[in-house]
Amino acid sequence: MSNDTSNGSGSAGRTASREIRLASRPSGWPTAENFELAEVEPPAPADGQVLVRNLYMSVDPYMRGRMNDTESYTPPFELGKPLEGGAVGEIVESRAPGLAAGDLVLHGYGWREYAVVDAGQVRKVEEIPGVPLSAYLGVLGMPGLTAYVGLLDIAAFKAGDAVFVSGAAGAVGSLVGQIARLKGASRVVGSAGSQEKISYLTGKLGFDAAFNYKTAPVRKQLAQVAPDGIDVYFDNVGGDHLEAALDAFKHYGRVAMCGAISVYNAAEPVPGPSNLFLAVGKRLTLRGFIVGDHFDRMPDMVAEVGTWLRDGEITFEETVVDGLENAPRAFIDMLRGANTGKMVVRLVH
Amino acid sequence: MSNDTSNGSGSAGRTASREIRLASRPSGWPTAENFELAEVEPPAPADGQVLVRNLYMSVDPYMRGRMNDTESYTPPFELGKPLEGGAVGEIVESRAPGLAAGDLVLHGYGWREYAVVDAGQVRKVEEIPGVPLSAYLGVLGMPGLTAYVGLLDIAAFKAGDAVFVSGAAGAVGSLVGQIARLKGASRVVGSAGSQEKISYLTGKLGFDAAFNYKTAPVRKQLAQVAPDGIDVYFDNVGGDHLEAALDAFKHYGRVAMCGAISVYNAAEPVPGPSNLFLAVGKRLTLRGFIVGDHFDRMPDMVAEVGTWLRDGEITFEETVVDGLENAPRAFIDMLRGANTGKMVVRLVH
Repeated sequence: MSNDTSNGSGSAGRTASREIRLASRPSGWPTAENFELAEVEPPAPADGQVLVRNLYMSVDPYMRGRMNDTESYTPPFELGKPLEGGAVGEIVESRAPGLAAGDLVLHGYGWREYAVVDAGQVRKVEEIPGVPLSAYLGVLGMPGLTAYVGLLDIAAFKAGDAVFVSGAAGAVGSLVGQIARLKGASRVVGSAGSQEKISYLTGKLGFDAAFNYKTAPVRKQLAQVAPDGIDVYFDNVGGDHLEAALDAFKHYGRVAMCGAISVYNAAEPVPGPSNLFLAVGKRLTLRGFIVGDHFDRMPDMVAEVGTWLRDGEITFEETVVDGLENAPRAFIDMLRGANTGKMVVRLVH
Repeated sequence: MSNDTSNGSGSAGRTASREIRLASRPSGWPTAENFELAEVEPPAPADGQVLVRNLYMSVDPYMRGRMNDTESYTPPFELGKPLEGGAVGEIVESRAPGLAAGDLVLHGYGWREYAVVDAGQVRKVEEIPGVPLSAYLGVLGMPGLTAYVGLLDIAAFKAGDAVFVSGAAGAVGSLVGQIARLKGASRVVGSAGSQEKISYLTGKLGFDAAFNYKTAPVRKQLAQVAPDGIDVYFDNVGGDHLEAALDAFKHYGRVAMCGAISVYNAAEPVPGPSNLFLAVGKRLTLRGFIVGDHFDRMPDMVAEVGTWLRDGEITFEETVVDGLENAPRAFIDMLRGANTGKMVVRLVH
C-alpha cells in the first residue's frame, strides 16, 4: 500500500525499519502479548526533519503508565502505533539546517530502528571518550536530569547539607548520592533493598552509610546512620521512608518528592506519614516534581555531569540488552527489578 | 526589699505596676491556679531603654506551649516570673534616642501593666483613625503577619489563584481569605466549625463559599465549593482538610502549613494524608513555617493591610476583656474557643 519506494526522495542509507507497537493494553503486569514487532518502510524526512538510525533506546518505569488508557502527566500510548521513549542515534539524512548526516542525537522516538524527527525535537550530543553513548539515556539523560534537578533545584541542596536518598541503588538514586557528594554534602546516606546494593553504595559509590530497609524499621535505621539529622531527603519511595525522614529532619529541611513506589501497587489507600505536622515547627518544604518540566536544565546537567564522567569522578552501571525484538522483554525484566543500574536496549552492534 | 523608690532616677509617671506570673505548670487544660497576680515597682529604664505603659495585651494559643517545661520553637515561661507576649502601649519615659514619651509602641512584654524594654525590641506604631490600637495585636500584628507571609511568601499566591483556607473564621484564617480576595484571587473558599461562622465568612468577609466541616466529609464539601480545583491551601488544621486539599489541587498547587490543630491534642498518632503521593504528579509544594522567622516582612504587611483598614476594605473582629487581673481567664476562654476573632485584654480604659 505504501508508495514510499516509488516516490523515494533519494534518501541515502534508508532501509527497512522495524518497530514495536502496542498490541493490547495490559491489566496488571505486561506480557509479551501486549507488544507486536512490525516491519515498515521508514518515511522520508520532510523539510525541517531528520532521519535517525537509533543506536540505543531506553526502557523506563513510567512507560508502564503510558500503556494504560488513562491520561496522566504523559499521554497514553496508542493501540497499533509504535511506543515512544528516549533514544540516541545517528542522523543518516538531514533536511534541517544545522544538522548533518553523522551527527549523534538524543530524541523521544525509541522503540523503532529508524525515526523521522523534527529538528526541534532532537538534541545533538557528543561522544565522551570511555563512556558509551547509552549514557545519554541514563546518567546524561532523563534519570540524570531527574537526580540533578531534584537535588539541586527542587530540594535546593547546598554544600554542607546532610542528604538521605531512598531507592539509592537505582538509576536516579545512585546519581543523587554521587552529585551530593561531589557538591560538598556533609554526609550522604541511602537505603536499598539488598545487602549487595548496600555494599555497592558504601563501596563503589562513596556513600557515607547505607541500610537495607527490609531488615529493620526505617525510622530506627535512619536515626542510626544520620544521628545528627538530615537537611535534604530525595524521596523515591514514600511511605515509611518519608515518615522516617520527617523525624530526622533538621530545621528548614527539604524533600524532593520524585516517586512513591510504596503506594503504586497498593490495592488499599496507604496512610500518609503520621508526623507530617512536624513540617510546621521544623519549617520543612516538601515539593513534588516531574522531570519533564525541567528540560531547560539539561545543558547544565550534561555539562556538569559530563565533566565528572570524563574525570572518572562519577560511576554508573547499566544492563544492556541487544536487539529491538528483545525490547519488550527488557522492559518487563526492568519492571521486575532484574537490571543493575539503567536498563537499555542496543539496536546496532 | 526593693530600693527602687530610694534610688529612683526621677522617672516621670511611674507608679506601682501589676504583673501576671506563672505560678505552676498546667497538665492538660490550664486553670486560674497556674497564674498569680503580683504588684511590683516598675524598674527604671537604663540607657537605651524605655518604660512603656501597656494599653492592650494579647492572649494567643502558642502561649499554652510555653507554659510547659519543654523547649519548642519558643522557650518556656519561667516559674515565678511574669509571662510574655505581644502588647501595645505608650512610652512614659525614654532613655533611648528616637523614642519619646507619648510614642505608641508594640513589643513582647505583655502580661504586665508597665514594661521596661530595650529600644531595639520596640516597634513604633501609629494610630489609624477608626481602628483600635489593639489591631496591632491582631490584624496588624502576629496573626496579620502570619496570614500575609503564609499566603504571599510561603504559598506564593498570585492573582488568579483559587484559594482554600481552613479555620477560616479565626484570627489568621479570616485575614488569609480577605487578603486573597483583595489581591485578585479567582475564588476564595473556607471551612469553619459552625453555621454562624459560615454565614460570617460568606457575608461580612466576602468569601465566595464556605462549609461547616462538622456536617459532611471535607473532601466532598471542598469538591462542591471548588469544583474547578484550588491553587493554594492555607492549612490551619491538618488531617482530613489537608487530604481534601491534595485531592482538589490543580497542578503546581501550594500549601502553606501553618498549624495542625487536628493533631495537637491527639493521644495517638494521627495517620497522615493517604494521597500525599499526588504531590509528585501534580507538582505540589507543601511548606511549613513559623511567623517568627519573618519579622522582616512586618513593615510591608502593616503598610498594605493598614491601607486596606483605612479604606474600610478589610474587616476584623475582636473580643476585648478588661483588666490585667482577668487576663488568665481571657487566655483560658480563648483556648476553649469562647472568643469571636482575636482575643485581647485591655489594661487601661
